[in-house]
Amino acid sequence: MEAGGAGNGSNGAAQTKGSGGDGSAKPLPPCCVKARAAAPESEAKCHATVVSGWFTEPRSHCGKAIKVQYYNNPMWPGEAHSLKVEKILYQGKSPYQEVLVFEEMITHLPLCSIPSPKKVLVIGGGDGGVLREISRHNSVESIDICEIDQLVIDICKDFFPHLSVGFEDPRVQLHVGDAVEFLRNAPEVTYDAIIVDSSDPIGPAQELVEKPFFETIARALRPGGVLCNQAESMWLHTHLIQDMLSICRETFKGSVRYAWTSVPTYPSGAIGFLLCAKEGPPVNFLTPINPIEVEGATKAGREIRFYNSEMHRAAFVLPTFAKRELEAYCASTETKQAEEVAAAPPKQTVVPNSGILTAS
Amino acid sequence: MEAGGAGNGSNGAAQTKGSGGDGSAKPLPPCCVKARAAAPESEAKCHATVVSGWFTEPRSHCGKAIKVQYYNNPMWPGEAHSLKVEKILYQGKSPYQEVLVFEEMITHLPLCSIPSPKKVLVIGGGDGGVLREISRHNSVESIDICEIDQLVIDICKDFFPHLSVGFEDPRVQLHVGDAVEFLRNAPEVTYDAIIVDSSDPIGPAQELVEKPFFETIARALRPGGVLCNQAESMWLHTHLIQDMLSICRETFKGSVRYAWTSVPTYPSGAIGFLLCAKEGPPVNFLTPINPIEVEGATKAGREIRFYNSEMHRAAFVLPTFAKRELEAYCASTETKQAEEVAAAPPKQTVVPNSGILTAS
Repeated sequence: MEAGGAGNGSNGAAQTKGSGGDGSAKPLPPCCVKARAAAPESEAKCHATVVSGWFTEPRSHCGKAIKVQYYNNPMWPGEAHSLKVEKILYQGKSPYQEVLVFEEMITHLPLCSIPSPKKVLVIGGGDGGVLREISRHNSVESIDICEIDQLVIDICKDFFPHLSVGFEDPRVQLHVGDAVEFLRNAPEVTYDAIIVDSSDPIGPAQELVEKPFFETIARALRPGGVLCNQAESMWLHTHLIQDMLSICRETFKGSVRYAWTSVPTYPSGAIGFLLCAKEGPPVNFLTPINPIEVEGATKAGREIRFYNSEMHRAAFVLPTFAKRELEAYCASTETKQAEEVAAAPPKQTVVPNSGILTAS
Repeated sequence: MEAGGAGNGSNGAAQTKGSGGDGSAKPLPPCCVKARAAAPESEAKCHATVVSGWFTEPRSHCGKAIKVQYYNNPMWPGEAHSLKVEKILYQGKSPYQEVLVFEEMITHLPLCSIPSPKKVLVIGGGDGGVLREISRHNSVESIDICEIDQLVIDICKDFFPHLSVGFEDPRVQLHVGDAVEFLRNAPEVTYDAIIVDSSDPIGPAQELVEKPFFETIARALRPGGVLCNQAESMWLHTHLIQDMLSICRETFKGSVRYAWTSVPTYPSGAIGFLLCAKEGPPVNFLTPINPIEVEGATKAGREIRFYNSEMHRAAFVLPTFAKRELEAYCASTETKQAEEVAAAPPKQTVVPNSGILTAS
């Protein structure tokens, strides 16, 4: 585990300097200056004015690509992640990182789908947000994280201590290096869950959506272990999603499902996740067998503000067009039927006025 | 009912003229010219490139505000709504009106929540899309529509025959005029469902989210009749939604619920709906008592490509932050409890691995 660094931007500190340049004042990176010029929230009742876009240009943010979006959002009212950054970028406004919606979903969808996860691996995720979410799960005994870029970790520790606090969990073991290499050398049949929190699978991260990579993931999972991967928007990239579903179905041989959630500032306002279970004890992703509600929700000093068990179930419900395009690529009919039997309540005619979520 | 006019832009017609000006050629309105300049879909696998924004500036589109968005979308692959407009705007690309996602949801959420709706009123909706969706419901005997703006209707008949086809249903009775005035003179205790498909409730349509308007709606509904109204995004306007929920709870006295759906090109990628039942026979919006699936889905020569019964249920599932902010303003505890009892399957312990959608 990597020590120190996090938490040094505590709220209330009067670190409101502009972009100086003396190093000690941790000056605003040049690529953040544009955010300062953005109009702040102009309408009192509008919480979600986006004042900054994705910093996804490779190596353009302090020489690095880090994914961060801020806005004044009803999920995090009146709260500051980093007063220092807040003051600099928003002149007193409260920015929040919507990436947390994504990180709650990419973490709890897999970990709530299996009983008692113990060994977890995170690929990417250097901002610490996924680690922070994993740390809410008491059953977890060890968390490996393989992040290629030390600078991402360092920047997030300086600027986003509420995310990077995830690194402070003593269960975390940091490995700085290439994920493909890491997995090649990882012990077989080890992890209960692997979470891939990588950048978009076009460009440098392309390799992370290809069959050889999924094969190394499958090799590292225990039978019945699960993968959760970022999987694009059903509105934008159905072909890419189909490809991923198809490869994963071949590779993992257990249940394979697409889930999605609303993330206002992502292109199309939605992002998807690929959930894959390795052949073995069957996994029914459609309902959280290991729900995380009140207790886990307030651990780490923060509530879970987006994810809950109903959102978990709803994430797998697809509009008709997406159902038609993607279901053929999901788990085989047999697996699906087994899942649905498991998900169904005791024999009951499905009357229209029932509360049963029929997921297929 | 208004006759004629619709359907005169049938696919295959070679009406591919540019913006002339002789009237007979139905030249491209000046405000559409900007769309022509927009870059068409540049990436083969990206379906949802937005090539046109909302035409919502009051009276700026041919002197009128009409809401239209086009993009090449997986919901409507390879299909042309209006070849004429398509050719002009997109040089051979296929544009689709995402407003249909909105119109499927604003129509079927209320009509599938009550048994056998017979008399329906639409406020606004001059493009005809909501009418078209209502016409899938065989139980409906009469559809009144009150649209303030004849020109909206005329433009849509010319340019969007696949929407305005809704006016061709013999059950439709068109009333051109002010909705407030219409409702003031409408017979009491008449409608099974009222659908308000108006523009954003800021500006000219402000009146349509205020108490006096809701009171005239309630007056026109039969006991247990339902209203569905556009209700903004949970990401953007929680205060406005709270206000609406609060007013409607006082006014309608039956179940009042907020639902939402993904609409990629709306601000925040999501839009909400307010479902209100007038005091009387209880209504459980959370599950479709009157499901519209295969038969209704293909009526009017088109499938329903977004709405389905699972999407109906999932539309009422809220992220934790929104639940907390909005539930206090929803139906009273008693009503909610009654709803949930009705929605629950026969007595069963809710084990984590069940398929039950617990909606609160």
